[in-house]
Amino acid sequence: MRKITYGGAVSLDGFLAGPNEEIDWLHFSKDVQEVMKEYWKDVDAVLMGRKTYEFAAAQHRGAKKPKSPPKKDSKTKERKVPVVHTYVFSRTLKEIDDPNYELVREHAVQFVRDLKQRPGKEICLMGGGELAQTLIGADLVDEVGLNIHPILLGSGIPTFRDPRHRVKLTLKECRQMDGGCILAKYQVVRTK
Amino acid sequence: MRKITYGGAVSLDGFLAGPNEEIDWLHFSKDVQEVMKEYWKDVDAVLMGRKTYEFAAAQHRGAKKPKSPPKKDSKTKERKVPVVHTYVFSRTLKEIDDPNYELVREHAVQFVRDLKQRPGKEICLMGGGELAQTLIGADLVDEVGLNIHPILLGSGIPTFRDPRHRVKLTLKECRQMDGGCILAKYQVVRTK
Repeated sequence: MRKITYGGAVSLDGFLAGPNEEIDWLHFSKDVQEVMKEYWKDVDAVLMGRKTYEFAAAQHRGAKKPKSPPKKDSKTKERKVPVVHTYVFSRTLKEIDDPNYELVREHAVQFVRDLKQRPGKEICLMGGGELAQTLIGADLVDEVGLNIHPILLGSGIPTFRDPRHRVKLTLKECRQMDGGCILAKYQVVRTK
Repeated sequence: MRKITYGGAVSLDGFLAGPNEEIDWLHFSKDVQEVMKEYWKDVDAVLMGRKTYEFAAAQHRGAKKPKSPPKKDSKTKERKVPVVHTYVFSRTLKEIDDPNYELVREHAVQFVRDLKQRPGKEICLMGGGELAQTLIGADLVDEVGLNIHPILLGSGIPTFRDPRHRVKLTLKECRQMDGGCILAKYQVVRTK
């Protein structure tokens, strides 16, 4: 069965972004790039909710029209990111005009349960917590990987929302990263 | 100036205790005991809010009348905990009938600012986040130490509440502990 991982860069107080979606505090060091490169090798599908999609689309538009010139070789790196199929879960969006995205209007739990059974590589669950809450709550997430940044944001977009039951984890990897970040990878302990 | 440290055992989603103050998920291993023993050597004062005081008092009453016999040598270890002076911050409590506790009814920020200037050893800020929020917000906390447990509780008593501004930290120590816990110690980056 395909593995679903959830996570990302988080503040020590558990936010994926600040109250106004700020991500200026992210420390994108060389060792993070290596971890991400390794990770994306095994991924061919991404799951996200509407809000994350809109945030990512806004970021992408911003990236296309940079106010300052891009850093040396940043374009080359961008091209290296493999194309993955992205499923956007929303009941309000009518359509997404981009062949890389597939709008899913049916219930996420059943859809993802089926998707895990289909042939394919790993699945990356991205996001701002609401879809993750649903899928963690339904016991469909297999791994959690966080890059814990040395900052308290105070408020913002939470990484974890209440899945309505305790979720036990097994620590698989823990290491200090550049900039005082901590990479922590966990496996979800199956309850059934 | 005396150092104030804040922290404790936390779930990966940032709770000090569950929604009904549950702490049954705590993994109190030998290496945690050693870390605590080292830590308490340098501490002679504790700060806590009313809720933490009441929680600690209830735990203490429970510990005095154990339903099951105490584990071998747990009593000996309890006796080894050094006596510290505890300041309880509350505007609603009338008095505390215990010479080890001092009720502080004045504003916490000014009191703690003065306390830091007085001679003495390190100060431990314990708690459920509200007093910590005030003192972190007032830039009075020097270090944060967390023992991050491999569990999502979903809800409960948050470790961090919004200090109304970003707080930058420097990672001083990070190591894997028994039971898949991560010990992470940070120094607060002074803003002034």
